[in-house]
Amino acid sequence: MHVRTPRSFGRRILLVAAAEVTTMRTVIIGGVAAGMSAATRLRRADETMDIVVLERGEHVSFANCGLPYHLGGAIADREDLLLQTPQSLYDRFRLDVRVRHTVERIDRAEQVVHVRDSAGETYTLGYDALVVATGAHPVTPPLPGIERAHRLRDIADLDRIVAALDSGDTPPRTAAVLGGGFIGLELAENLTRRGVAVTVVELADQVLAPLDPEMAAPVRDRLEANGVTVRLGAGAREIGSDTVVLDTSESIDADLVVSAVGVRPESTLAREAGLEIGERGGIVVDEQLRTSDPAIHAVGDVAEKRDAVSGEQTLVPLVQTANRHGRLVADVVTGRHTSTAPVLGTAIVGVFGLAAATVGWSAKRLRAAGRPYRAIHTHPADHATYYPGAATLSLELLVDPATDTILGAQAVGEAGVDKRIDVIATAMRGGLHASELADLELAYAPQFGSAKDPVNMLGMIADNLAQGVTETVQWHEVEDEILAGTAVVDVRTPEEFASGSLPKAVNVPLDELRERLDEVPGGRVVVTCAVGQRGHSAARILRQNGRDAVNLDGGVRTWAAATGR
Amino acid sequence: MHVRTPRSFGRRILLVAAAEVTTMRTVIIGGVAAGMSAATRLRRADETMDIVVLERGEHVSFANCGLPYHLGGAIADREDLLLQTPQSLYDRFRLDVRVRHTVERIDRAEQVVHVRDSAGETYTLGYDALVVATGAHPVTPPLPGIERAHRLRDIADLDRIVAALDSGDTPPRTAAVLGGGFIGLELAENLTRRGVAVTVVELADQVLAPLDPEMAAPVRDRLEANGVTVRLGAGAREIGSDTVVLDTSESIDADLVVSAVGVRPESTLAREAGLEIGERGGIVVDEQLRTSDPAIHAVGDVAEKRDAVSGEQTLVPLVQTANRHGRLVADVVTGRHTSTAPVLGTAIVGVFGLAAATVGWSAKRLRAAGRPYRAIHTHPADHATYYPGAATLSLELLVDPATDTILGAQAVGEAGVDKRIDVIATAMRGGLHASELADLELAYAPQFGSAKDPVNMLGMIADNLAQGVTETVQWHEVEDEILAGTAVVDVRTPEEFASGSLPKAVNVPLDELRERLDEVPGGRVVVTCAVGQRGHSAARILRQNGRDAVNLDGGVRTWAAATGR
Repeated sequence: MHVRTPRSFGRRILLVAAAEVTTMRTVIIGGVAAGMSAATRLRRADETMDIVVLERGEHVSFANCGLPYHLGGAIADREDLLLQTPQSLYDRFRLDVRVRHTVERIDRAEQVVHVRDSAGETYTLGYDALVVATGAHPVTPPLPGIERAHRLRDIADLDRIVAALDSGDTPPRTAAVLGGGFIGLELAENLTRRGVAVTVVELADQVLAPLDPEMAAPVRDRLEANGVTVRLGAGAREIGSDTVVLDTSESIDADLVVSAVGVRPESTLAREAGLEIGERGGIVVDEQLRTSDPAIHAVGDVAEKRDAVSGEQTLVPLVQTANRHGRLVADVVTGRHTSTAPVLGTAIVGVFGLAAATVGWSAKRLRAAGRPYRAIHTHPADHATYYPGAATLSLELLVDPATDTILGAQAVGEAGVDKRIDVIATAMRGGLHASELADLELAYAPQFGSAKDPVNMLGMIADNLAQGVTETVQWHEVEDEILAGTAVVDVRTPEEFASGSLPKAVNVPLDELRERLDEVPGGRVVVTCAVGQRGHSAARILRQNGRDAVNLDGGVRTWAAATGR
Repeated sequence: MHVRTPRSFGRRILLVAAAEVTTMRTVIIGGVAAGMSAATRLRRADETMDIVVLERGEHVSFANCGLPYHLGGAIADREDLLLQTPQSLYDRFRLDVRVRHTVERIDRAEQVVHVRDSAGETYTLGYDALVVATGAHPVTPPLPGIERAHRLRDIADLDRIVAALDSGDTPPRTAAVLGGGFIGLELAENLTRRGVAVTVVELADQVLAPLDPEMAAPVRDRLEANGVTVRLGAGAREIGSDTVVLDTSESIDADLVVSAVGVRPESTLAREAGLEIGERGGIVVDEQLRTSDPAIHAVGDVAEKRDAVSGEQTLVPLVQTANRHGRLVADVVTGRHTSTAPVLGTAIVGVFGLAAATVGWSAKRLRAAGRPYRAIHTHPADHATYYPGAATLSLELLVDPATDTILGAQAVGEAGVDKRIDVIATAMRGGLHASELADLELAYAPQFGSAKDPVNMLGMIADNLAQGVTETVQWHEVEDEILAGTAVVDVRTPEEFASGSLPKAVNVPLDELRERLDEVPGGRVVVTCAVGQRGHSAARILRQNGRDAVNLDGGVRTWAAATGR
């Protein structure tokens, strides 16, 4: 089945009728998500096309996102991760899939790639269309001893970690995971499930950098509650034989070290071929995923994306996007007029039964970009509280105050997180305004949601803010307010108040507020309650009584999560 | 707190500044979802308004949708269903809530309502604005013996059924539930959980009338697997002392009978007041929920809605809509310019661990209305199959073939049903085309979804159909195709084929199709597989080989569910 004879084609010829005479060849470099989506779609579009997939690794089309879960045992059988083989792809799609074939050079002038096969022999292969789907590679931090650190990007990496975990008489009892991102936390959970004592070392002062700190805090708590040591604001200085030494000179026990500090586009081949590379290292593509050479497309983690919030170029190394764009590039190669949509970067991670998810931009990213925003925090139940098993969700919605456009959202909780983020991601794609979330008709029965779903509630708060019915302050603004002399009134019950509140807060329960208005200090007042709902009612009462009252967004719960108090 | 002295106000006066001088009064008839949402929102908007809620029953703001689950024991404590009391609503919102006060007449000329209180005394109450939120009442089928049948609409109904179930020496061992709709099936499950042998009697030839039959079939199977007897196409003729006699003269054991055959707007009061009533019995309202009398609004189950698919008037007795419109009517009464959105009627029901949900229109409703549509059926896993616990979902998407507009969707399965319907409902509200579902960025990690989410897959199929890449036939069309001489090729493996296929189908596995093309009969061919995915690839191969091949939408699985074979 393999065509080893070097062949060179001229510029791509549009084949209209004479498909049996001249066969077009598409060469795809990289055989995982984007590459394989492109390859199978190409075949369904064109039975006659010569489709060659060149994969450097041993495996194609494997379940990248499942790798950590085989470590922890949730996915017991390694074979379950291997979704396709070259043979199965030949049988079904007549794909010419060549594993352990490394493309060493792209010759754009000749339209050929130079390949080294598994035996070390080289050959050239001509293409009419070339699709670069080389993915991304893990960043290797430049630390002494880093060669001892594992990484987890493919099956070979997985096998090495499994071998280390299973190593006979001295299996690792301790592990350090460098990086508290999505993969780092999945590693921490799954190594813990293997009985290893894990320390997560994260340079930032929170885990899950794409999330805002108050949303990431419950995830850190959950890690610690499950025995994971979390070292925030901590850089690794050196990797010893059974330790990781931090910048502070502190030494962390680590029989096993796994580095998961991020990925970079695998764009060396493209760069050496003279294709335009963006400042983040991704291949520059247009909306048809065309590189600066019209015969070459790039897709998946290696290619730049257009950000839906800023409209600027970005990198989004997510498999869904890779798959979708793989399908799209096949359409473009076979002559369809179609374009990519800007990306939202929806992502989710499970951490010891807690889910944390994000779409669009975070508040801190918006602040860093100098972009005005409104933040809304709520802590509703995932389904009707009168039905058993309801769990509290924490939700954040970011809104453009000028246009009511949704800029992003985050969710953390034990249930219903994926649903709410998916709904908001869909609303963003559909161009719904934040206030319009109030009016979404979401499926309700008490075991599935609430008559006013958490997403509806976000919309109602957004509407109140947009209409000027209420005004809120954020957890990170309240300290300055207090320093500037603003009073804080906590409208919870005395019992709730006794469990802790903001500095200098006075307690006037909401249900008594109208009678006890004289106890509310004069001047500007921040009102707070547990999650912001009673505070909203209280602020309305105070404002209608002529007071300058603002509600603490998300209540004591958001504030406490953010400040650790 | 109660103002019992009859008061009459003149026409509504717009109060701008002198709120403390003249108090506007809003009277709300009905204190459950819509009425109470309106009342609390009114208070937050206006501290000075006189807000009176007149509720005929004993309870306000109770958890209507939780009633069946107290029967079955999932909600153990009856008190959990009582979300608010008149006292709690006074304390927090200064609402004047009067339970067991029945409005007997609306005098529009005088702008007063005539009320009978719990002691049987009558009084009149003037209003500046009147909100009719009287809800809907269960339809009582005109059967001999119907007075023995229970219904389940409020707490009093619940108490009566609980009393019957708990009746000392002869608790009911058998029950008949009349009506196989959402509430009927919730009743069937919960009575079963109480140890009662339940028969569901449903006039239609399927349960859950809003769903298409092939989507409802798994629900019936689930009921039967849990010991519920389901009698479809069966009308009750008479209710005996411990039986229900069917039209067929067959007698069903039924110590207990519960009627759940639907609800009708409680619009008598409005009709008697001369307000315009629609042909379905709902109060006619404009986009500001104003009735034909501008001082009177109607909201919730009693009011007509505008259907999002047809643009026509409809009835949607769902609590989410009631709540949203309750909020909106308060905004309108307090002077905000705002309008209702057309309704999609998103709904879900849980039946013994299976969830069934719907949004928009069904295929059969579209057919009955003579409206062209495309139907797409899939049976994906709720999350990545390589991660444990994946359950199969059945999804249906209805699409306008001329515009690619989404007309409706349905889902049935054990997990992820609510999420997918919520995403599609949001896409519909956002005006996304069916093909654009392919490009939604939904949160993916293997325990939460798939790299190509089921909703993405629906979008990809919609895109293929819109682009003419494939053509499908529906389960209800294939029999005529076969009769007309169309051949059927089943492209599953021989093992799968041996488990049963369509009449006259020949088996050519997909992976061998290219070599065995000569075994495919000439002329038009219907291709089928398990769920439609391999069939799609096979149809592409055949079409590119010049064959007139169409794919059976949803594969053998949809066809078998629909035909019972």
